[in-house]
Amino acid sequence: MSDLPFKPTRARQRRDLQRPADAGWRQELHDIIFEADSPAGRWFDIGLLIAILASIFLVAVETVPEYEDWRNLFIRCEQILAGLFAVEYVMRLMTVRKPMKYALSFWGIIDLLSFLPSFITPFIGGSSASFVTLRAIRLLRVFRVLKLWRMMDDADELASAVWRSRNKIIVFLAVVLVAVTISGTLMYHIEHVSDMDAGGQFTSIPQAMYWAIVTMTTVGYGDIVPKTTLGKFISAALILLGYSLIIVPSTFVSAEIIQKTQTPDAHPCPHCNVSGHRADATYCYRCGDRLVR
Amino acid sequence: MSDLPFKPTRARQRRDLQRPADAGWRQELHDIIFEADSPAGRWFDIGLLIAILASIFLVAVETVPEYEDWRNLFIRCEQILAGLFAVEYVMRLMTVRKPMKYALSFWGIIDLLSFLPSFITPFIGGSSASFVTLRAIRLLRVFRVLKLWRMMDDADELASAVWRSRNKIIVFLAVVLVAVTISGTLMYHIEHVSDMDAGGQFTSIPQAMYWAIVTMTTVGYGDIVPKTTLGKFISAALILLGYSLIIVPSTFVSAEIIQKTQTPDAHPCPHCNVSGHRADATYCYRCGDRLVR
Amino acid sequence: MSDLPFKPTRARQRRDLQRPADAGWRQELHDIIFEADSPAGRWFDIGLLIAILASIFLVAVETVPEYEDWRNLFIRCEQILAGLFAVEYVMRLMTVRKPMKYALSFWGIIDLLSFLPSFITPFIGGSSASFVTLRAIRLLRVFRVLKLWRMMDDADELASAVWRSRNKIIVFLAVVLVAVTISGTLMYHIEHVSDMDAGGQFTSIPQAMYWAIVTMTTVGYGDIVPKTTLGKFISAALILLGYSLIIVPSTFVSAEIIQKTQTPDAHPCPHCNVSGHRADATYCYRCGDRLVR
Amino acid sequence: MSDLPFKPTRARQRRDLQRPADAGWRQELHDIIFEADSPAGRWFDIGLLIAILASIFLVAVETVPEYEDWRNLFIRCEQILAGLFAVEYVMRLMTVRKPMKYALSFWGIIDLLSFLPSFITPFIGGSSASFVTLRAIRLLRVFRVLKLWRMMDDADELASAVWRSRNKIIVFLAVVLVAVTISGTLMYHIEHVSDMDAGGQFTSIPQAMYWAIVTMTTVGYGDIVPKTTLGKFISAALILLGYSLIIVPSTFVSAEIIQKTQTPDAHPCPHCNVSGHRADATYCYRCGDRLVR
Repeated sequence: MSDLPFKPTRARQRRDLQRPADAGWRQELHDIIFEADSPAGRWFDIGLLIAILASIFLVAVETVPEYEDWRNLFIRCEQILAGLFAVEYVMRLMTVRKPMKYALSFWGIIDLLSFLPSFITPFIGGSSASFVTLRAIRLLRVFRVLKLWRMMDDADELASAVWRSRNKIIVFLAVVLVAVTISGTLMYHIEHVSDMDAGGQFTSIPQAMYWAIVTMTTVGYGDIVPKTTLGKFISAALILLGYSLIIVPSTFVSAEIIQKTQTPDAHPCPHCNVSGHRADATYCYRCGDRLVR
Repeated sequence: MSDLPFKPTRARQRRDLQRPADAGWRQELHDIIFEADSPAGRWFDIGLLIAILASIFLVAVETVPEYEDWRNLFIRCEQILAGLFAVEYVMRLMTVRKPMKYALSFWGIIDLLSFLPSFITPFIGGSSASFVTLRAIRLLRVFRVLKLWRMMDDADELASAVWRSRNKIIVFLAVVLVAVTISGTLMYHIEHVSDMDAGGQFTSIPQAMYWAIVTMTTVGYGDIVPKTTLGKFISAALILLGYSLIIVPSTFVSAEIIQKTQTPDAHPCPHCNVSGHRADATYCYRCGDRLVR
Repeated sequence: MSDLPFKPTRARQRRDLQRPADAGWRQELHDIIFEADSPAGRWFDIGLLIAILASIFLVAVETVPEYEDWRNLFIRCEQILAGLFAVEYVMRLMTVRKPMKYALSFWGIIDLLSFLPSFITPFIGGSSASFVTLRAIRLLRVFRVLKLWRMMDDADELASAVWRSRNKIIVFLAVVLVAVTISGTLMYHIEHVSDMDAGGQFTSIPQAMYWAIVTMTTVGYGDIVPKTTLGKFISAALILLGYSLIIVPSTFVSAEIIQKTQTPDAHPCPHCNVSGHRADATYCYRCGDRLVR
Repeated sequence: MSDLPFKPTRARQRRDLQRPADAGWRQELHDIIFEADSPAGRWFDIGLLIAILASIFLVAVETVPEYEDWRNLFIRCEQILAGLFAVEYVMRLMTVRKPMKYALSFWGIIDLLSFLPSFITPFIGGSSASFVTLRAIRLLRVFRVLKLWRMMDDADELASAVWRSRNKIIVFLAVVLVAVTISGTLMYHIEHVSDMDAGGQFTSIPQAMYWAIVTMTTVGYGDIVPKTTLGKFISAALILLGYSLIIVPSTFVSAEIIQKTQTPDAHPCPHCNVSGHRADATYCYRCGDRLVR
């Protein structure tokens, strides 16, 4: 395993706890299904990715009115894929040390719900609409497969940049909430009073708040637009305000990322083991000991 | 108080001037209502936050036509909350050193106006519509409560970044004003002349200026769109121009933030006089001498 | 003049060439009209700014159908302001050293055209529509007045950041032109062929290119939208592509600004006079001489 | 050639392999057609650029219904330009060392396809619509001509910044794909069930996914909008989520560019071994010793 191009991460070590203790087919199958290090494991993950994409494609195409004639074919194919997912689910249960723990974990529940509706629906006769939605969550597995192409680092970097600026994002959402509430209420009163019987679109405060979000994020559907002159004037002011409100927090994430990518030399001090020195530092900033490069 | 996880800020010291001088129930109540340091103060703030959100939710839902049957219930609940706000207002008046100063302060007036309309409206019979809007401003109190989760620093950082780039924002708004006026006037003449009786949407210059703002900020409702070929051509050019106009100032805020987060400690080393140390450095990175702060 | 809070800039020195040589009322009036250093000059500029804004407001309001009754009043006021601008124009001509040079300069022509149409129109009876547009350009004078509040530096910084990245902006516009042409032509063929008699909105390639610009800049009016499934699919791909195309150049401007604001120590070398050393440099990077701080 | 203002790039050296070995008219013509270093070569490129722009303009204008009367004129002009492109193509074939290699290269095929359809269509009588599209790709040649104005560096910088962040862009697209699928499926079930006969616009899952992309990128056409209250609520949440999803990767490109423009020369001083010198430094900033490159 030392010839692998990447070090075992903490997430990896956590997963190893579920690896069967006894060497044998169960351990081998576990490595193929749960890991992507061996060639077999890689092909399994790529196959799974294709199956998930095909399954989602079929569920999506089933709903298109133009292809209604082929609907039975789509459903048949979809049930075959659901069968494969069921086999995969059973295999996963069989090759982990504690099947119950896996079955009750987040991915275990997603895996179960991703094939169950396709089997139950035909017997009940009802619509499995509300459950197939969960199938899409399986796509998140895509990230596990991405490891194959060494993109995991970039994904981690992206995720950690978002995580580090979480406080700022919450502050931002609070400001947006306040701005949306105030501007939505304001626009409702302006537009509703003067436009009541002229087909005004600001029918209620929640409707006006929906408009405020659509406007401030510059989406601007145009299904709800101010009709009165005053409404248009305030709307224009809100757009400029909302623009500023959204620019500022977005730069925070930017600053976090830039700060991280610019973090200087990682060589740790040989004495106190602290890192993060300037690239041209000769002495440790914490203990004053001479640095070795 | 020395065991608190944060240092008293200047805003805090300013507030202390209003703290009653005599130790007793008034001082205790003051700390609960105005501060969030003690457990009781925290719970009070969380409760207040929930009450404000519930109150805003009720005011918003009242206006939805679908829920008209339950409207009386909503109004009743809303009046109960208004009563609580009234009690809170009286308590605030009672526990500050100078009640008059509080009553005439910004938050004092907001607090008064946030419950008054709910009491007056039933007797007058009119609509309190224009006043309840002010209720939403109370949401800004959210920020005080955010202190609980140590998010105040991020909020301060955000606010100070905006504040430092205020001049640039004003310059930006001036440029936008000029661009909107010129392009609005231009488009009015192009579209109005050639499109007068074909249902043209550029009915007046202010209308065209509203279009210019909606377009340049990339909101693009689509309620007003150019119909003529020339209008579309100029519109496309304006979009690209407007895009540039708005990108540039947004990067200024970005630059301000990045500059601030990257500026290292300016205190020079007392021995070799070099600066640019990490903010948490104890020893000079060049000569290894102890730094004095 | 040495007690002024800012140093005379090069632009200032250039203007001084037009200052009348003989001390007297002409020189005093020149300083009031062309400079903003003296209190009188400041008030003149602020008055001019208000007059320009009022004039633009009147021209805009004249076109609103709702206020048609007051139209004559607006036109009367507007003509009075045009008279003031005429007086200002004559005063400017009188107080410069070379009136002809001013009259033929950019601002001289703008000044002339900003009051001329209002005088000529009543006699001709035609519409001065195409000329009043130029009035708006006068708003650019706003920047001269901004000098009052020390915002000129920020305006200069903004302008120079845009100027330094002009090459990148041109490259960007060339890429956008190519992308718009290709995607517009592509969408025209997809949507036009399959949608010819079903009210398709992609009536011609220029129309499709207009759609491509509106889409790629995320304005998205919605007046032209793809109707076919293939068109929607390609449209979605184009949106993501266009998004990337526009993000990249915008970050260039950002990088230029950040780079500039982070430029290190400006102290020049005492020997070769070069600046731009690192903040912690001891020796000049060009001549190797010891730096003095 | 040593007096040229720029060093021969690798791309240049690659092209030289195609330069005819024997000095003579073929070599001279090759330099004019394929290079832009000599005055003649520059004029050829500028002429070509104008011809491509004119050709694209004609193809675009041909499709405008208003100018149908002049259509024959446009087609005639277009065919003349196609003839010039044919001549250019033959000249290119004649002046390269290996004509077959050029003919089968990307640009060779584009060059062939850019004039062929205009000649074939009149005889077949059918529509050359699907082929003329390729003409637009010729516009990419614009970049070769840009070399004239030294903009090639900026174009390279732009391209390499995009290239270096390709992994992040792929991760981003994967996240967008997941988010679009989940939110599209979700919105389909919410809007379709409750809105089936009320003219609901979420007719199928692919349609809903198209909506999700249009919404998350803040384009917001408005041709498909949620009608139900729940749909609007989820839509507002998705907009805010999508906004965050798109902001983060855009900042990555920004960070890559900023990092590159700020990275100073890594060559260490031969005397004191310190690095981080300016890219144009001759002497070490710390010890004043001469740097070796």
